[in-house]
Amino acid sequence: MLAVLTGGTGGAKLIQGLSHEVDPAELTLICNTGDDFVLHGLYVSPDIDTIMYSLAGISDEAKGWGVRGDTFAALEQFGKYGCETWFKLGDKDLATHITRTRLLRDGFTLADVTDQLRRRLGVRATIVPMSNDRVETRVQTFKGEISFQEYFVKERWQPDVRGIYYAGIESCRPAPGTIEAIERAFAVIICPSNPVTSIGPILATPGIRKALVETEASVIGVSPIIGQSAISGPAHNLMAAMGTEPSAAGIAGSYADFVDVFLIDRQDESLKTEIEALGITVMATSIRMNSLSDKRRLAREVMALVAK
Amino acid sequence: MLAVLTGGTGGAKLIQGLSHEVDPAELTLICNTGDDFVLHGLYVSPDIDTIMYSLAGISDEAKGWGVRGDTFAALEQFGKYGCETWFKLGDKDLATHITRTRLLRDGFTLADVTDQLRRRLGVRATIVPMSNDRVETRVQTFKGEISFQEYFVKERWQPDVRGIYYAGIESCRPAPGTIEAIERAFAVIICPSNPVTSIGPILATPGIRKALVETEASVIGVSPIIGQSAISGPAHNLMAAMGTEPSAAGIAGSYADFVDVFLIDRQDESLKTEIEALGITVMATSIRMNSLSDKRRLAREVMALVAK
Repeated sequence: MLAVLTGGTGGAKLIQGLSHEVDPAELTLICNTGDDFVLHGLYVSPDIDTIMYSLAGISDEAKGWGVRGDTFAALEQFGKYGCETWFKLGDKDLATHITRTRLLRDGFTLADVTDQLRRRLGVRATIVPMSNDRVETRVQTFKGEISFQEYFVKERWQPDVRGIYYAGIESCRPAPGTIEAIERAFAVIICPSNPVTSIGPILATPGIRKALVETEASVIGVSPIIGQSAISGPAHNLMAAMGTEPSAAGIAGSYADFVDVFLIDRQDESLKTEIEALGITVMATSIRMNSLSDKRRLAREVMALVAK
Repeated sequence: MLAVLTGGTGGAKLIQGLSHEVDPAELTLICNTGDDFVLHGLYVSPDIDTIMYSLAGISDEAKGWGVRGDTFAALEQFGKYGCETWFKLGDKDLATHITRTRLLRDGFTLADVTDQLRRRLGVRATIVPMSNDRVETRVQTFKGEISFQEYFVKERWQPDVRGIYYAGIESCRPAPGTIEAIERAFAVIICPSNPVTSIGPILATPGIRKALVETEASVIGVSPIIGQSAISGPAHNLMAAMGTEPSAAGIAGSYADFVDVFLIDRQDESLKTEIEALGITVMATSIRMNSLSDKRRLAREVMALVAK
């Protein structure tokens, strides 16, 4: 069994590759839920959905979110009612949020609901939220505090960031199966996801970082950054705001207590010595995943390290 | 000011005609909410929506429900999640139910929400639910009890009906503005809607029938039945099940305590004497409304009676 810590976009790419290289039933995907938010009274779980749609083969890979070929008729009507329209909820996508919201109200946990939905879509990998409790990544800008989706989607990550915190993190409990998956895995993979807003909340979920430090499994991380910039999204800006050097070395440093092997891009080969000094084995390869063959190749390289 | 009691389909046709013949701002439309139900956790109010969409000029008149040109992408996705799909919620239509549900959860009343939505769609007529409290028309069949929408849409009104009742009707209060509209109107119009499941719940809402009996306004009803059959829907079956003769005369009889004038179809002219014996003035005309010009003509005939 493999345990995988993931956010949305970058994680979805590596996981798609992994699902072709190993039996998906062997994968337990521990998803960030710090980006979750309520819109139009519906509970939206962007990272879980991106991973689920991706493994179901229905994700819009060009956009990096939502369902391929989705329509936006409801969104247009929301506009007529004066509702917020900055978050582009597609019509098929809405059915997911409506169904999730109904099941949560019926008393199911987020983990239960996630499991029901992914099974219905034919996804064989286990998808678990980091927690069933509500955690919300809050972004402190110089103009006030906003949710991560407001920062990322509404404000297109333009505002300067003073700080970030995960509201509710101290009192949340890890979802059933998360700690166990890390303890029992023969390898744990840290996806090339935003270290501050995707992997960060998972690591801060009580018990998870400790399980990563203590597990006998080898823990393999993949950098989401090449040079000084994230392959996608605002990871570098947020790392800088949090006082971490925005580079593969900065990330490796913040994972140094639990990561055994770290994959960086060949372009960053000069960082190898610095990262190895942290006691981490470094492998330099091509970490960009533009095509399915890129995703599969990187997944194979990760699996080759696992086999060692 | 005109007060109008209405259900969905038939009522929407006459109201559309009225909205062309009088200033819509003069109309207070008191809508049945006995058909309201919760689907996918969303509060659906079929009669209010039919009236609202119709007056907003966006109703699908060919189907008799929903928004013209709506798509059904979410419905397809609901099917993939194993959710109920017998009630054909369109994508634009979903935005209405989602917004209504959110506002109700935020503490607004159904009347508040209805008013907000109809204004957003540019509807100048006032639309009020009969009550802000939950009333549910229950249909007792020989195979068990179901909601009206299950009977009407899911079962296509095929089951034999033993009885009907309005759950919650005794303890519900009329929505603010309903009684006042009837008291202050210079005429009240009872639309050609199902007397059992559309007009029936409105009349049973505490205080409304009394206001109709006591109002000095002339009360003008239009039959939804020609011969032994409703122009659309199961009114005749339901009337028979309730022990009322399924005919214009049967309806007039059940409205006799408050109706002053009753419009029947020319085909039913033979019923004139029987209805007049109840103290009701009868006018025979063509009550079918297949085109906008039919709707306007019938509306003009109603308004001519009001003017008398």
